[in-house]
Order: sequence, then C-alpha cells, then structure tokens
Amino acid sequence: MNIAIYGYGNLGRGVEDSIRRNPDMKLVAVFTRRSPESLTVATEGVPVVSTENIMEWKDKIDVLIICGGSATDLPEMTPALAKSFNVVDSFDNHSNIPVHFERVNKIAKENGTVALISCGWDPGMFSVNRLYASCILPDGKDYTFWGKGVSQGHSDAIRRIEGVIDARQYTVPVEDALESVRSGKNPELTARQKHKRECFVVAEEGADKARIEREIVTMPAYFEPYDTTVTFITAKEMKEKHSELPHGGNVIRTGVTGKEDCHTQVIEYKLTLDSNPEFTGSVLVAYARAVCRMAKRGDSGCKTVFDIAPADLSAADRSEIIAHLL
Amino acid sequence: MNIAIYGYGNLGRGVEDSIRRNPDMKLVAVFTRRSPESLTVATEGVPVVSTENIMEWKDKIDVLIICGGSATDLPEMTPALAKSFNVVDSFDNHSNIPVHFERVNKIAKENGTVALISCGWDPGMFSVNRLYASCILPDGKDYTFWGKGVSQGHSDAIRRIEGVIDARQYTVPVEDALESVRSGKNPELTARQKHKRECFVVAEEGADKARIEREIVTMPAYFEPYDTTVTFITAKEMKEKHSELPHGGNVIRTGVTGKEDCHTQVIEYKLTLDSNPEFTGSVLVAYARAVCRMAKRGDSGCKTVFDIAPADLSAADRSEIIAHLL
Repeated sequence: MNIAIYGYGNLGRGVEDSIRRNPDMKLVAVFTRRSPESLTVATEGVPVVSTENIMEWKDKIDVLIICGGSATDLPEMTPALAKSFNVVDSFDNHSNIPVHFERVNKIAKENGTVALISCGWDPGMFSVNRLYASCILPDGKDYTFWGKGVSQGHSDAIRRIEGVIDARQYTVPVEDALESVRSGKNPELTARQKHKRECFVVAEEGADKARIEREIVTMPAYFEPYDTTVTFITAKEMKEKHSELPHGGNVIRTGVTGKEDCHTQVIEYKLTLDSNPEFTGSVLVAYARAVCRMAKRGDSGCKTVFDIAPADLSAADRSEIIAHLL
Repeated sequence: MNIAIYGYGNLGRGVEDSIRRNPDMKLVAVFTRRSPESLTVATEGVPVVSTENIMEWKDKIDVLIICGGSATDLPEMTPALAKSFNVVDSFDNHSNIPVHFERVNKIAKENGTVALISCGWDPGMFSVNRLYASCILPDGKDYTFWGKGVSQGHSDAIRRIEGVIDARQYTVPVEDALESVRSGKNPELTARQKHKRECFVVAEEGADKARIEREIVTMPAYFEPYDTTVTFITAKEMKEKHSELPHGGNVIRTGVTGKEDCHTQVIEYKLTLDSNPEFTGSVLVAYARAVCRMAKRGDSGCKTVFDIAPADLSAADRSEIIAHLL
C-alpha cells in the first residue's frame, strides 16, 4: 500500500511514525506548502514535494492522508484532493461534519474515489464506541469525558492575552463525576461538574499577573463555565515539564435491562495517551488500509468510521483474526 | 424486523427483554424443545412453538436468534437452522470457532442465508475491541481480564463434588495486575496473577467440609492454577445473595509510538454487567439487525462481529448518527 502524507506538522509526523510500524504500508511522499528544501522528514529516502506538484503523483498513491487543521484547511483541502485521490482526514469540528460530509461525498462519488472523513479518536474511536454502546443498550445514557490532556485551542486562547509569552492548558475530568456516571446513577452534569481546567502560564517580566489570571478565569465559553486554576511558571519549567501533548478520555454508556429495568449495565471505553498526535496518526493509518481496500473493491463516496467493518482495518487475514482475536 | 428466539433459558429471556426495547423489532415466536404448553413467555401474545414445527415458520422470520449451549447444542443447531433461516448464535468455545465457522459458512453459502456466529461480549464486543486496538497499535500487547462475575462452568464443576448441594463461583480480576497492565509495563502474568476464584458452597448436612474444600482448590485446570477461596453458606444465603448473574471484564492494549518508542498509549474497554445473559442478549439483538440488512442486500455466508460495519447495528439512519454520534 502506497501512502502519502499531506501536511507535515505534529499530526503528519504521527502518521509517519505509524506507517513505519505497519509492514504492509510504504510512505511514498510527504507534501508540504512550505519550501520542500526547508523540510527534513524522519523516514530516510522519502521525497518531500511541494503541494503544487501533487498531480504528478496521481497514479503513485493508494491513499493520501491529509494532516491539516479543521478550521480552515480541511474544508478546502479534502474536497479538492478527493477529486484525484482516495483520502483520509481528521475533520473534528463536530457541528460542521454533516456539511463537510455532503461536500466531500458529492465530489468523491463523481470522481470514483473513497474519502474517509472525521477519523481519529474524537471524532473517531470515541464515535464508534458511542454507536456500539447505544445500539446494545437503547435504554441508556451517554457520557464523554476528555483528559487529562492538553487542549491546543484553550492554550492558544491564553497566549492571546496581553503579557502572556506562553501557555499550556490541561483539561481534567472531575473524578467524582466519573464515579457517579460509572455507578449508573445517570447524573445530569454541568460543564463545571464534568471538567476542570488547569493553566500554566509564562508571563512577561513585570506583567500584571493578577490581571492575566482574571482575564483567563472570566473568559466566556473557554474558562468562565469551569473551575480554572492558573499557575505562573518560568519558560524553563514550561519547556521541561509541559512540552508533551498527552490526552485521552472516557466514553461511558450506562443502560438498563431486565424486568422493571432492574439491571444496570455499564460500557466504558478509555484512552490514556502519552501523545495525542501520534495516537491520532495511528488511527488514520489503520483506516487508510480500509480505504485502500474499499477503493479496490470499486466502492466510492464519503465514508465515516461507522461505515468500516473492523476486519478491513487489519493487516492480518480473516482466518487469522478469527483464530486469534475472536 | 421479525425476530424469533430458539431456546428459552436465561439467554433467550435476555434476548426477549432486548427486543421489546427496540421499536423496529417484533418478537414473532419462541421455539422450545420442551412441551410448548409448559412454557409462558414474558411478551404477551407471542406463540410458543415446538422446535419440531419450525419449518412452518420459514417465511415469517427475518432472523432467528439461537440461544443454545456451546458444548453440544450450537455445533448441531446452527448449521441445521442456517439451511432455512438467517441466524445469530453465541458460540463461545474459542478454540473450536474456526471449525464451527467453516461448517456454518458452507451451509449458509449453499442456501443463501446469513449466519452470524460467536456474538455476545466474549467472543463479541471484547473481540471487536481486541481487533480495533491491535490495528491502531501494532507495536503493543493485549490483555483480557474477566469478572467480577459468575462462571457457570466453574460453579457446575463444584456442584459435581460429593456432598455439594449448590455452588456459585466468582471469577475476580487481581487489581494489582490490572494496574500494572494499565501503567504500560507489559508484565508477563500467570493465570494466578491475573485472576482469583471465590467459591460459595452449600454442603449437605454432615458433609466433610475440609474434604470438599480440598477437592475444590486442587481441581486441575479449574482451580489448581488459581488462588481460590471457599466459603460455606446456607441455602437461604445462596438464594438471597447469589441468585444474580453479574459479570464483566476488561480488554486492555498498551502500545508504543514515537521516536525510540518513547510514548505509551493505553486503550481500555470495560464492561460492568449486572446481568450477563441480558447483556449478551442485547448484543445478539443489535447484531440481528445487521444480519437482516445484509440478507436483504443479497449477502450470504457465515459472518462474525469483525465483518459488521457499526452503522449496520443502528436503528437510526446514517445522517442521524453522523450528526449526533460522530
């Protein structure tokens, strides 16, 4: 399977790391909007190509994994690239997924390509688990918790405050809320009851720290609805203790079965990730395998993780997975 | 969707409970090997029919859910019934699954039916989670823990000991082992290190309890490889405290990503079930929906949970699940 990466940021590097762990896959090119000479990739011998020249690669790529941002990149890139390539993206703006789906589906159908959108862990593996659990326990309630992990959006919001040099924000699930959900009590939880926010900030010398803290904790939508702590640290501490991108979370469904709903059943899916972009990249690569197979079978159009049978993700053949994993 | 149940024990009743929670499904008949007059089912108006007369129902059933035992029932029943019906079974003898698959596949292909085997939670949801996790993290290690829950096989083994009136055996995962796995240490664990066995026994009056306990804890394969505790209780206590069938467990995969395998990633799927047969029944019913759809699309042959795209399990349509669960 010949795989190419479009965009070489944290996610692109995560995809690259995963490809080398899958012997049935080969990384054939990395496309960049930057000057190709400025970029060195980790995999030896792989050409770095300007995105302007991608059409020269049309017949050399089985699946193109698009590693762009959801705000402005993917809404343009995925439809444009799905004209000529089978693609996978990680579009994660949940409320805009239906619109993105329709746009990509039209183009992929017209051009006979397969385009899998919104892959990763949320959307992605968390979505699959929400679906499985809701189908098994129709009389139940879903909960999703995130963290402990770095939220890039919230970190960026703090960095925009005057006097802030750098910031890192951790989203932390509230342990009591998790336990209450697991117990089957079906609690109604506010944003504040589910998550808290821990902020680490490097301030300019002489900056008014009290004002910075006030601006953070009162910021609407981002921090005001949560219990937020702000800790000022040095640039050195930031580098030493907060340079990684851990994340994770829990999808929990509690449901009832039996006479008069007498039995509680709890399904929980939990991720504890040292590296968010490397895990997300690993999911994209597994789904690229399925996309390649669907395209070879003559399928086309926009797909989501809901449409992929688990067997299509595996490098092993059917008799092997039946014998060893069933 | 017209569903029928073949066999009305604990699992059959669990399937029945789930069907009434799925408005797109209708229970049309319950088949029994017992005398039909001797059986009253929970759903009003549903006929109880002798298994001898099942062929009269050939065109009235979309999917037949076979609720028999794996030791002797299902190896005979599933191939025989797959000649005339789309079927779902819960065959759980892991090492014999490949043989069962081949037998059922041949018959289902020849007769144009769809037969899903080995559905439930293990095999079933645990298998799906082992597969997803191994595809995402190829450089990793799998662990499956069971319990806390009642093992019918181990309870039966105790009941066969002279002087035992009744017994209930709980399989209990060892918490330290779970924590060691979750930490990403990839421990090598013996059977004894992973699970312990708690036995509750009602003995005949005057029975030699020391001998019964010794026979239990030294029983090869069943108890000898584990730390086993034996507690003698009264028949009244057994009825009051041990009449339910809880179960559950954890599927955990820990893997590595990144430069020099520097990042540990942990995926965990956990079930905490008040009722094992009702949860298993709920899984069978969700998969019956997929079987019905595959048959309508003209598919045939033996299937496993690996072959089913998650979307096929859902009563909701595609745009709805994309908008609300992705």
